[in-house]
Amino acid sequence: MAEIVAVADPDDPRIAAYRNVRDRDLAGGHGGRFVAEGETVLAVALTAGRFRMESLLVAENRVAALEPLFAAHDLPVFVAPMAVMEAIVGFPIHRGVLGVGLRGTPADPAALLAARPPLVVGLSGIANHDNVGGIFRNAAAFGARAVLIDGATCDPLYRKALRVSVGGVLKVPFARVPDTLAMVDLLAAADYAVLGLSPRGARRLDEIPRDRPAALLLGTEGPGLSDAVMAATETVRIDMAGGFDSLNVATTSGIALYELARGRTVG
Amino acid sequence: MAEIVAVADPDDPRIAAYRNVRDRDLAGGHGGRFVAEGETVLAVALTAGRFRMESLLVAENRVAALEPLFAAHDLPVFVAPMAVMEAIVGFPIHRGVLGVGLRGTPADPAALLAARPPLVVGLSGIANHDNVGGIFRNAAAFGARAVLIDGATCDPLYRKALRVSVGGVLKVPFARVPDTLAMVDLLAAADYAVLGLSPRGARRLDEIPRDRPAALLLGTEGPGLSDAVMAATETVRIDMAGGFDSLNVATTSGIALYELARGRTVG
Repeated sequence: MAEIVAVADPDDPRIAAYRNVRDRDLAGGHGGRFVAEGETVLAVALTAGRFRMESLLVAENRVAALEPLFAAHDLPVFVAPMAVMEAIVGFPIHRGVLGVGLRGTPADPAALLAARPPLVVGLSGIANHDNVGGIFRNAAAFGARAVLIDGATCDPLYRKALRVSVGGVLKVPFARVPDTLAMVDLLAAADYAVLGLSPRGARRLDEIPRDRPAALLLGTEGPGLSDAVMAATETVRIDMAGGFDSLNVATTSGIALYELARGRTVG
Repeated sequence: MAEIVAVADPDDPRIAAYRNVRDRDLAGGHGGRFVAEGETVLAVALTAGRFRMESLLVAENRVAALEPLFAAHDLPVFVAPMAVMEAIVGFPIHRGVLGVGLRGTPADPAALLAARPPLVVGLSGIANHDNVGGIFRNAAAFGARAVLIDGATCDPLYRKALRVSVGGVLKVPFARVPDTLAMVDLLAAADYAVLGLSPRGARRLDEIPRDRPAALLLGTEGPGLSDAVMAATETVRIDMAGGFDSLNVATTSGIALYELARGRTVG
């Protein structure tokens, strides 16, 4: 059962985890925690999420409407007038609800692959939170059950990435492998077909045999995957109409996962 | 040959079309014109675009770098110090270049279909500029050669939609049909397979025969296509992993156009 806790003072120490969210987002520091916002993401966090939620902070005028979200869950729900909530957080919370979750111990990439998910995504240098969020949304939609991220890919648990993923970041297990070539080695050692997606790819994505689990590697928009990564992977492409600028990387991930999920048992 | 015109006074009448861009965006009023920003979009506008560009406005410190963009084109290029440019436009122009184009006479939807493009997109109530831009980007990438938009779909020539489309809005002809059911009738009369895409669709998209030109209808995120439109079309779906929130509509358009372009001669 959720425990409702009224908060009247922005300096109340019990809501310290919600203080100055944006500044701490930018500094990358929530002390082993992450902040999620909005009813949709928090519904995933509380029901299907892989991370323990520590508490919620709800605007007074949204408590009644949001009760079905939190009533059955065993955590404190801090309730504050909208003005106090804004003073705590540091910006207007249009959605009226935030939650703090615990990151826990980072997942081990080899352990994720040991579960043999048939479809895996690898991200190399995806530094845009919208793109990372979009890719996790698509990974969840098409049954990819692990995402490996390199050192240059941004934090999937960043608030905006979480929001764009519609909670996908909380559902699909992910683990960091600092170097993309080490990621390729790890995937190859686990007997994955390691597919480097690029407009310069040698084979059309739909020509790839479905007899092995597949790992789809995506590079940053613009430069794409490095030559070294391309040389170490089986390169694949999506054919497009003549000469137009390539697709957005999040859209590309949706198309590629749609294609790779076809004829595999995923989900 | 471009004609360089130095502008020192924000009230110079020759650059009236650039005045207070954001306010006029919101009011929907550029008097038969549209405003495009950034080198990538303007490169499309000047080379592959369907609309006549009237002029450019370039920040003084970007003129040398942008010369290859405009040098060969016969239009005035207004050059102003960054501070004057910001005073004209009303906000910081990080990309240092804007252009004004002429909308011309709106295209006639029946005339677009008379050219028999094998792949057409229809938009019903897509009110988000990012989504409209993303859909046009994907339409350009997969060779859709006409987009029909209903009365509730936002303006594709809005600055942000143009930017997200990476110029796709300037390449793919579009025409407005105020009512979606009238759009369906028009497409059916032109012998298109009219496909209503929805998670509730009766057939998988890849089961649709490729023997007729196809029109892909997309509804707004959330509610999707209306029951009346669903009843009037051949409904199709994209299968996803169990129970997850549906895809973003722009991503959906990318997947569906990828699938529909396969086995058709498009481009």
